[in-house]
Amino acid sequence: MRKASPELDNGRAARAGIRSGEFRGPTSGMAPGYVQGNLVVLPAEHAADFHRFCQANPKPCPVLAISEAGNPALPTLGDDIDLRTDLPRYRVWIDGQLTDEPTDIGSLWRDDLVAFAIGCSFSFEEALIEAGLELRHQSQGCNVPMYRTSIATTPAGRFSGPLVVSMRPFDAADAIRAIQITSRFPAVHGAPVHLGDPAQIGIADLSRPDYGDAVTLRDGEMPVFWACGVTPQAALRAAKLPLCITHAPGSMLVTDRRNSEFSTF
Amino acid sequence: MRKASPELDNGRAARAGIRSGEFRGPTSGMAPGYVQGNLVVLPAEHAADFHRFCQANPKPCPVLAISEAGNPALPTLGDDIDLRTDLPRYRVWIDGQLTDEPTDIGSLWRDDLVAFAIGCSFSFEEALIEAGLELRHQSQGCNVPMYRTSIATTPAGRFSGPLVVSMRPFDAADAIRAIQITSRFPAVHGAPVHLGDPAQIGIADLSRPDYGDAVTLRDGEMPVFWACGVTPQAALRAAKLPLCITHAPGSMLVTDRRNSEFSTF
Repeated sequence: MRKASPELDNGRAARAGIRSGEFRGPTSGMAPGYVQGNLVVLPAEHAADFHRFCQANPKPCPVLAISEAGNPALPTLGDDIDLRTDLPRYRVWIDGQLTDEPTDIGSLWRDDLVAFAIGCSFSFEEALIEAGLELRHQSQGCNVPMYRTSIATTPAGRFSGPLVVSMRPFDAADAIRAIQITSRFPAVHGAPVHLGDPAQIGIADLSRPDYGDAVTLRDGEMPVFWACGVTPQAALRAAKLPLCITHAPGSMLVTDRRNSEFSTF
Repeated sequence: MRKASPELDNGRAARAGIRSGEFRGPTSGMAPGYVQGNLVVLPAEHAADFHRFCQANPKPCPVLAISEAGNPALPTLGDDIDLRTDLPRYRVWIDGQLTDEPTDIGSLWRDDLVAFAIGCSFSFEEALIEAGLELRHQSQGCNVPMYRTSIATTPAGRFSGPLVVSMRPFDAADAIRAIQITSRFPAVHGAPVHLGDPAQIGIADLSRPDYGDAVTLRDGEMPVFWACGVTPQAALRAAKLPLCITHAPGSMLVTDRRNSEFSTF
């Protein structure tokens, strides 16, 4: 990960730098050791169904915190969080169409909006790196490859769609180690959902990811697949809500919680 | 596993039945929930090297207990254990050659003999079955297939040789689950050492195991390999000690410790 400047070394400082416009992202490498989350903001009338969707699909949709309707705070993740200003960039979706990518959503905020912070793979990737494992997408300086699978999520209300997975190649020994390490982090996607033959989960061609970038599989390596936070984003888009706001890719919510807090043992 | 008669439902009762000659083994299915161990008895002059061999190779050689020289007791595993009588059948090795398979080793016991009890896969197999996983060798009513690999153990004194592994086939989801479950049992072989391509660890043909019986790999399954207690037995045989006594295959030491005690979380 990129070395962040010392003033961005914790979640609160990172958010302050983002809020003031001093730092515009991406957030990867900011506040090392602190949890970053995906953001989903939607009208209260759809929030209950979306929450049920997350509850029914905890591996792709691990909920870290949910706001009160109309309140852009998430005090359990940081006592000064203002979700209208604290992410470097947002995406605004109207009827399932991307309409804007603002750096501030103050003018869009409404009393009926509910925000969800959802765990992301940055947390377990940090643990994999600390264990000495190589993350191919990092070595190759690209985004992790992500694939739509033939595994359906459990629907809730208008939310449904395929499980999307991220893929990291490892040799067998590192795959076993990666399963052990990520199993400790159920709140941030947890253990892999599959390894080995991609066709078994409906992936026809590893070199053509649906999101992110293809990475090299070396001789003797196998692909290992984790449930991915793009799953709820794809379900949201397909639901065509009149309004939905998410983080822009790579521009996450940086929190005051440490990744290590989410290790179950 | 075979249903044992009620009077063999705990370790002490099982040993009493064996000691009296009422029950002659195999011990699989006896005293469900209780740890069974491999037995290795050898002259004290070789015990330190063998212990170092086990310490350097903990996955195939997880030591549960070591006796005092000349004392056939292992009080930490059961306060009435008498290793001369409490296993259904033994094997006697002289200069690396199998010379006898007695049901009692009282007449061979000497003041300089040291006994090692070594963890066995029965403990983690119980946890796999409780988790609803199918053990193919059990469904097929045969022994688990075992293979000599191209992975060398760390030698100690005259003890050395290849890592021997046992193999259980699983689909990807069950392989991930099996890694999680067996990772909790480091004292009884722990996590797998390999999965997927057998050639990567020097296994040319899964249908021709070096020990035990071949099992069917179904479509979409992968072989998963665990370090196996046959590893120290093969190292012992190759060391050609003037005297060595082991359990006979399937005739283990039944202890008073519960498998669940060996789960680290």
